[in-house]
Amino acid sequence: MKIKVGIMGVTGYTGGELLRLLLNHPLVEIKKAASRSNFGNDVIKVHPQLAKLINLIEDGIEEEDFAQGLDVVFLALPHGKSAPLAKKLHEKGVKIIDLGADFRLKSTEDYKDWYELDHGCPELLEESVYGLPEIYKEKIKNSSIIANPGCYPTSAILGLAPLLANKLIAVDNIIIDSKSGATGSGKTLTQQTHFPDLNENLQAYKVACHRHTPEIEQELSILSDTKIQVNFTPHLVPMNRGILSTIYVKSQKSLDNEQLEKLYSEYYRDCPFIRIRDKNHLPQTKWVQGSNYCDIAPIYDARTGKIIILSAIDNLVKGASGQAIQNMNLMFGLEETTGLKYGGIYP
Amino acid sequence: MKIKVGIMGVTGYTGGELLRLLLNHPLVEIKKAASRSNFGNDVIKVHPQLAKLINLIEDGIEEEDFAQGLDVVFLALPHGKSAPLAKKLHEKGVKIIDLGADFRLKSTEDYKDWYELDHGCPELLEESVYGLPEIYKEKIKNSSIIANPGCYPTSAILGLAPLLANKLIAVDNIIIDSKSGATGSGKTLTQQTHFPDLNENLQAYKVACHRHTPEIEQELSILSDTKIQVNFTPHLVPMNRGILSTIYVKSQKSLDNEQLEKLYSEYYRDCPFIRIRDKNHLPQTKWVQGSNYCDIAPIYDARTGKIIILSAIDNLVKGASGQAIQNMNLMFGLEETTGLKYGGIYP
Amino acid sequence: MKIKVGIMGVTGYTGGELLRLLLNHPLVEIKKAASRSNFGNDVIKVHPQLAKLINLIEDGIEEEDFAQGLDVVFLALPHGKSAPLAKKLHEKGVKIIDLGADFRLKSTEDYKDWYELDHGCPELLEESVYGLPEIYKEKIKNSSIIANPGCYPTSAILGLAPLLANKLIAVDNIIIDSKSGATGSGKTLTQQTHFPDLNENLQAYKVACHRHTPEIEQELSILSDTKIQVNFTPHLVPMNRGILSTIYVKSQKSLDNEQLEKLYSEYYRDCPFIRIRDKNHLPQTKWVQGSNYCDIAPIYDARTGKIIILSAIDNLVKGASGQAIQNMNLMFGLEETTGLKYGGIYP
Amino acid sequence: MKIKVGIMGVTGYTGGELLRLLLNHPLVEIKKAASRSNFGNDVIKVHPQLAKLINLIEDGIEEEDFAQGLDVVFLALPHGKSAPLAKKLHEKGVKIIDLGADFRLKSTEDYKDWYELDHGCPELLEESVYGLPEIYKEKIKNSSIIANPGCYPTSAILGLAPLLANKLIAVDNIIIDSKSGATGSGKTLTQQTHFPDLNENLQAYKVACHRHTPEIEQELSILSDTKIQVNFTPHLVPMNRGILSTIYVKSQKSLDNEQLEKLYSEYYRDCPFIRIRDKNHLPQTKWVQGSNYCDIAPIYDARTGKIIILSAIDNLVKGASGQAIQNMNLMFGLEETTGLKYGGIYP
Repeated sequence: MKIKVGIMGVTGYTGGELLRLLLNHPLVEIKKAASRSNFGNDVIKVHPQLAKLINLIEDGIEEEDFAQGLDVVFLALPHGKSAPLAKKLHEKGVKIIDLGADFRLKSTEDYKDWYELDHGCPELLEESVYGLPEIYKEKIKNSSIIANPGCYPTSAILGLAPLLANKLIAVDNIIIDSKSGATGSGKTLTQQTHFPDLNENLQAYKVACHRHTPEIEQELSILSDTKIQVNFTPHLVPMNRGILSTIYVKSQKSLDNEQLEKLYSEYYRDCPFIRIRDKNHLPQTKWVQGSNYCDIAPIYDARTGKIIILSAIDNLVKGASGQAIQNMNLMFGLEETTGLKYGGIYP
Repeated sequence: MKIKVGIMGVTGYTGGELLRLLLNHPLVEIKKAASRSNFGNDVIKVHPQLAKLINLIEDGIEEEDFAQGLDVVFLALPHGKSAPLAKKLHEKGVKIIDLGADFRLKSTEDYKDWYELDHGCPELLEESVYGLPEIYKEKIKNSSIIANPGCYPTSAILGLAPLLANKLIAVDNIIIDSKSGATGSGKTLTQQTHFPDLNENLQAYKVACHRHTPEIEQELSILSDTKIQVNFTPHLVPMNRGILSTIYVKSQKSLDNEQLEKLYSEYYRDCPFIRIRDKNHLPQTKWVQGSNYCDIAPIYDARTGKIIILSAIDNLVKGASGQAIQNMNLMFGLEETTGLKYGGIYP
Repeated sequence: MKIKVGIMGVTGYTGGELLRLLLNHPLVEIKKAASRSNFGNDVIKVHPQLAKLINLIEDGIEEEDFAQGLDVVFLALPHGKSAPLAKKLHEKGVKIIDLGADFRLKSTEDYKDWYELDHGCPELLEESVYGLPEIYKEKIKNSSIIANPGCYPTSAILGLAPLLANKLIAVDNIIIDSKSGATGSGKTLTQQTHFPDLNENLQAYKVACHRHTPEIEQELSILSDTKIQVNFTPHLVPMNRGILSTIYVKSQKSLDNEQLEKLYSEYYRDCPFIRIRDKNHLPQTKWVQGSNYCDIAPIYDARTGKIIILSAIDNLVKGASGQAIQNMNLMFGLEETTGLKYGGIYP
Repeated sequence: MKIKVGIMGVTGYTGGELLRLLLNHPLVEIKKAASRSNFGNDVIKVHPQLAKLINLIEDGIEEEDFAQGLDVVFLALPHGKSAPLAKKLHEKGVKIIDLGADFRLKSTEDYKDWYELDHGCPELLEESVYGLPEIYKEKIKNSSIIANPGCYPTSAILGLAPLLANKLIAVDNIIIDSKSGATGSGKTLTQQTHFPDLNENLQAYKVACHRHTPEIEQELSILSDTKIQVNFTPHLVPMNRGILSTIYVKSQKSLDNEQLEKLYSEYYRDCPFIRIRDKNHLPQTKWVQGSNYCDIAPIYDARTGKIIILSAIDNLVKGASGQAIQNMNLMFGLEETTGLKYGGIYP
């Protein structure tokens, strides 16, 4: 019996990545897809790279009967659009995995502050689970609505969790310097992501005001059982895929690299998609390209007493569609890695 | 019963790509790997992107017992190195798929002229089959030694075969202008492929003297039953993967684009990895990135009476490792697409 | 006495390149700039890379008095916009250099066929000169209105002129395969030039229907005194600047590379921006990056009797703004190279 | 009277950049060049991008008479090579600008610790001046031997100087996260800078052990009159030119962005190559590409009390050859900007 899947918002990059991965998932059947812009056409029209592998005429995203015959719906929509749709779909009894931002923040006030919108479905917030399987595996298994984490938060939280959970670092001085490829900005045209402008260029953006900040802080606060504020700076790098987060924290005690590696390895011992790297094999985004892995290396700087953590993911896979499928696997009682056992595509 | 596979020359890019694809092949077991430079170490040492997916200590490429317990050996070695090894392996009864150049040219004189070496194993040339499944499917099924085609020839021959087989074009005026990503030059360091030199740069190389020329001419001559000479110009493009060949031929009669599409579609009707594109959807290398597809669009220019054919592949997949696996599937009686049903990775 | 310059359409890439180069021109004063989108603001707002070097509040492009106090106006506008403006400016007695397409084609019918517009100022067509200084230097000196050539035509015509002028090749079989960086498509946002779509991608576009075709044919026909039709195929390469044209022609007689080099060197002996390269030093777009040079190498293929010519320029400099300044120098009696003596920026 | 210049180590990227810039310097004559690998040949052989602009047969770097007839020698050599040569040249009375690392660290112990070499000329250390003109302008004017700063230190020190000089920040918690294009690694071939490996990839390197660390610390300590240790992490970005440093410091008092901008503008009011940017116009490496500018934006994060400084340079210009020429201008009593008045090359 295959899981019957629908995708809302299939025309974007995360939609295409869901199709690419789900087409090779042995226990999934892609039944429906929907979007505003490609309504009534074959998904191949917007994803010609998948020609010969799928034929599926798209519904519109307002389609009333979309949930019918489906076990789970992936929502790959802009923030503000998911919440009302999720409400409707939830009422029809279908499971929901939201790749957007609407269910990530538990506080509707934070949501309003950072997204400048009233939340469209506060009543489901309680029920929804933050879908980071390395932290919330058991909750995810029993959930019917998943808030799939943001790409930057995935890399940052996974990089910090072992230290915070073990109370090894100062919590008032966490710096997360993240660098992302251009697909993180999505398919929408902007001058910033126009090829001649972005190519051979490097820049920070939304310094001290990026919307992933409260999401990171929420989860780090839970992990450490303290209210945490961080400095988070995103950068735009002239490449397509990949996030590398370089994280700086103050160690509470003297450690060495071996101890750090052991700590991380133990913390993630049941996590098939975490790979601990070391000083001589620092994470490269290309090692995780196209794959669901998160590669992490914690380094101790004895001179300054700081720990520097490098954390690399593919923003479209572990940072979006791959993680969404990992969540689906858990929700349906499958092996977490089903349909996701891919190494990085190198070079 | 799985096919037991060995790979000689596993440290290069095509070796890594064989590992990546074979690890997800449902009917293959990777039993052995060998190389000169990583002898005695785990393959993960040179392919860290595959960590957690494989553990395999490498043999040396001189290992006498390498064939033992294997059904097939992939040779991913420089030209001149494959032939003597193939001889030894063939004597042990193992099937051979050579990703190098040693068995591609049927004429040992041509081999000597273009590769400046005496052929290391002329006695197997007759038996070996040129492994382009779209042309030689039946021969491949019955062969024990396959010469996997070069990357440029794959794109060029597939682009031209329907026209030549149907005798629709002048054979004395074929121009193949090919553009390749940098992985085509391999892992060996050169000034030309040093990042600062190649990035933001474009150049032709080996004009009128590239070694893939006689290979293309051999196969086009067979297809058309005439001796054909071509102009073939390779270019180096600042990207990693992908070949786009732009081919110019003189049509013998007036055609339109619909007729051309029909002709190509019929010629390749039993070829699962050929996708015929059209004027409004010209092949893009990214549509085939990471996949085994060859996307082809023939365009008729009514003003000049020329046909322009665009042909795109991923040089490491359909141009090397993917095609090698396609050949293996045929040699072992499997469905041609087994383990290769991947769309392009976009973006 | 400095030349007083105005630029209409200064916000685009060619506008920025005019500013960059003119700011270091020893005999120019940039007096005015205008655009639709940045009217009333400082040019620095759209060209922040030039901060501290220029302060200039922009006029609108409809400004009636724009010509006043100016010696020459550069028009960097979309086709169809230049012609009516040129008419007005010409009446005011100011010299005009049009970087757009409106005055390139001498035939208003060709203009209508390829640009799908009635020509906005046919009466100035006769007077205007095609601004390729290597061919029309004397005419340019005496002209008051210059049609600055297209980027592709510049590379193609310069690559072919010595052979056509000397009647050495067949005129019915000329193939021009051109590859361009993304700035050739301009600053306007398109899906094709969205970073994630173009990066790591390669494609042909407008096969057999690009608007530079009639421009190339017009000039080759004049050079050879015969009506010439060509096959011209443009490609989009994942880099910012640079055009490399690979040109294939049938030689009328047996030649060798030395003879070809000599022929080209003699033909261009008074042309300071042409550099003849050879087989062992094939043109690279990076050798001309940021500079006004055109690097050309003609190669004879003895096997096929074809000549393959490689021709490289920076599309924004020799293919646009640099050539425009070269034309201005000639129109004002200056040394052709004034303000343009820059080598390629490498790497 | 022109300054007579010689360049030792001209074959590398900084050597080429010196040539490119000096060729357009109105008061310089390039008299001699030398290298080990191109000894006896024209510099054009290794810098074909400059063909038609210079003809100069190279000396060997051991040439005894090299200083003869020269006013100043630029040394663009690996560390350890400059010191003994500088000694010889200094004895001949020629001024020296060393683009290498040998005279940057005032402490020979630090030099030994970080470069694992005994210093080759400790007697000149006292006399040499750290050539950061924005800090040491007067000293540079009177110096005969300049240690041209490292690329990373230039971006980091200029980003921090106004805050440290004004004692506005905590000195025990400075984090410098720097990202560099590939030319920073030089022309030498490495697997890390092989195009297929670096393209579409991002990685940190030499975490907590990069040799620019003691150089940064030395200068920050002088500026603040306290012993400062920093966390400095370099990253390798898939582009050619440009460094962006993202610097995190703890503010000692509440500030706002306007106050910060004013502070920076005043501190650098006599510095023609510093451009202060703001929150809405964050520095982009492309704005300084090919130019000698350093673009800086200090941002106050009111939530965390941190100041985040973005600092962008072209590593080959302000980070190497341009700054060297700026130093030369000062040493010879010229206007600081002579021959360097170029904006960024965009796009």
